[in-house]
Amino acid sequence: MTVPFRFEVLATAGKARAGVFHTPHGPIPTPVFAPVGTRASVRALTPRQVREAGATLVLANTYHLYLRPGAERIARLGGLHAFMAWPHPILTDSGGFQVFSLSDLRHIDDDGVTFRSHLDGSLHRFTPEVSIRVQELLGADIIMAFDECPEPYDRAYNERALERTHRWAERSLKAHTRADQALFGIVQGGVFPDLRERSARFIASLGFPGHAIGGLSVGETKAEMYAMVDLVTDILPADKPRYLMGVGTPEDLVEGVRRGVDIFDCVLPTRLARHGTAMLSTGERLNVRNARFADDAQPLEPGCTCYTCRHFSRAYVRHLVVSKEMLAATLLSIHNIHALTRLAHDMRRAIVEGRFAAWLEAWEARGEKPRAAR
Amino acid sequence: MTVPFRFEVLATAGKARAGVFHTPHGPIPTPVFAPVGTRASVRALTPRQVREAGATLVLANTYHLYLRPGAERIARLGGLHAFMAWPHPILTDSGGFQVFSLSDLRHIDDDGVTFRSHLDGSLHRFTPEVSIRVQELLGADIIMAFDECPEPYDRAYNERALERTHRWAERSLKAHTRADQALFGIVQGGVFPDLRERSARFIASLGFPGHAIGGLSVGETKAEMYAMVDLVTDILPADKPRYLMGVGTPEDLVEGVRRGVDIFDCVLPTRLARHGTAMLSTGERLNVRNARFADDAQPLEPGCTCYTCRHFSRAYVRHLVVSKEMLAATLLSIHNIHALTRLAHDMRRAIVEGRFAAWLEAWEARGEKPRAAR
Repeated sequence: MTVPFRFEVLATAGKARAGVFHTPHGPIPTPVFAPVGTRASVRALTPRQVREAGATLVLANTYHLYLRPGAERIARLGGLHAFMAWPHPILTDSGGFQVFSLSDLRHIDDDGVTFRSHLDGSLHRFTPEVSIRVQELLGADIIMAFDECPEPYDRAYNERALERTHRWAERSLKAHTRADQALFGIVQGGVFPDLRERSARFIASLGFPGHAIGGLSVGETKAEMYAMVDLVTDILPADKPRYLMGVGTPEDLVEGVRRGVDIFDCVLPTRLARHGTAMLSTGERLNVRNARFADDAQPLEPGCTCYTCRHFSRAYVRHLVVSKEMLAATLLSIHNIHALTRLAHDMRRAIVEGRFAAWLEAWEARGEKPRAAR
Repeated sequence: MTVPFRFEVLATAGKARAGVFHTPHGPIPTPVFAPVGTRASVRALTPRQVREAGATLVLANTYHLYLRPGAERIARLGGLHAFMAWPHPILTDSGGFQVFSLSDLRHIDDDGVTFRSHLDGSLHRFTPEVSIRVQELLGADIIMAFDECPEPYDRAYNERALERTHRWAERSLKAHTRADQALFGIVQGGVFPDLRERSARFIASLGFPGHAIGGLSVGETKAEMYAMVDLVTDILPADKPRYLMGVGTPEDLVEGVRRGVDIFDCVLPTRLARHGTAMLSTGERLNVRNARFADDAQPLEPGCTCYTCRHFSRAYVRHLVVSKEMLAATLLSIHNIHALTRLAHDMRRAIVEGRFAAWLEAWEARGEKPRAAR
């Protein structure tokens, strides 16, 4: 069923792993950070810019593409890779998360979700079978089981939703037909250790070629998030990739990798870019609009090798942000994506070279420097 | 005074010329179309994308950069070339056109113009000496004399403005000190042949290393514009480049080149791009938002070799336009600039190869094809 996919673990350091996930559109070295191209476009960037910023995997959103331009249309045009001119690995979500976020516009039952389009109010229905069918039309390399992502603190709701998510995982698996796509199962359970454990055991038992941890980074504390990740990665099989959904600060990447996570995605680098904020690979952020950068001839992050940092000063990027020039979002997105892909790459190399413990120490020491000193 | 600048005419065809204008930042093969980077950024494009779209020269606006981020600041940061990371030729306008466009916010006298910033209402004054000083701080390769650009049909105003423009041309020349910048004089005179002739003779007599035709494409008819260009290029010296300011449809490029114009600039390709319109090198335009492109797997312009046409379908670009994705402006700007630079390049090659008359015939025949047939 998922024959072309192979996950090689090259080295480990405690729970952290460096590996390669092989897909029909090429290998994904892990740990990996995937930028998000919601509507089949990583905002403000050409695919070449995304690639040069270090991305090997991009995420696209099934809900958005299903509504516009339509999955059948993308299939007719050769699938998502051809449509968005990204010949490298792609991951699509199930559409569930976006649909559940519609709150007033959707109704959930045990069979699926009925919802209204945020674009034109038209009525639609997603079930596990529909989600898988749409994801097969889109044609990403990694696709996701249809799941329910509840509020993390509501115990009763989480118990009900978990049962549904487990049934939907089985139905997703059964509905999936394309051998050139890896279907990942998703572990839910809110902030409740026993639910997370039950979910991890059940999802792991179904034989997915990869597993995701969903329902985190949605309002719980960092400590709760890391505890859930720790617990779940202890249960999920070590020979399959683990994907922490929607997570993407530098700190979260490091805390995820040390707990055995391989794949991350987040809109943060591109969203912050559009708001004039640079993410440094140290975890710090620069509000580039700040007047103190008006005459600053340094690059956004000294030492950074991205296109933006090789060519432009903070003063220029600030000028673009203040002038509302579109190029500001482009240059900041390039840098921010590069900062996160480079961070994942640095950890990978440290794991492969057997010095990840020292790398973590240095990371933590860097985090302690007072901000004012930089 | 302008020693590093040399204009080589390689071949002529009637009044049309193919040449090279040598500048301190490299040669500009002519005829040339220059895209506009108002605020030191060609909208939605990195300098690399601008270059790869075929641009050899870009224009930046003195008025905008004077107000923000400030010419002194750009000078401290190494000048405009370093600031915007465009190591190739740059042209700045005098700021006059923008200032005169402020209408209610400016007062003109014989010495200069007092105006209020459109950004914060602060009071400023431009004279020929200030304009040249600001342009010297910006450091472009080609800079423009300070001139007045009146309504094209008001005879009395044009006569007064012309005298002022001529005095300001002399003062601009006198104020200019940088030997690594070519200062161009500007011919005005509205739609009045005798004023245009008087202006061309006077401006030509001052010994500028290049000449511009200003005050056109501002409301007059195409026939009037072409007649003024024809008249002025008969008078301006043949051994210096001629620049038709603010002009940039494919048709205007062809009509300008056949009348002896070498340099063009216009915001049209990038502005139309932001509104979802593709300019074809044939002169046609595609409103990419149109539903008939929703399933169109062809590139914007079949046969085009730009990055956009090599990688993306009309269907994808339409999806980006309809979804208000920033990448739409980027991809359309790349194509539109490429269409105009390629048109200028095609004419140049036809002139050099002695087949410009045949090229013009083919161009005109192409223009007669019914639009519906494509």
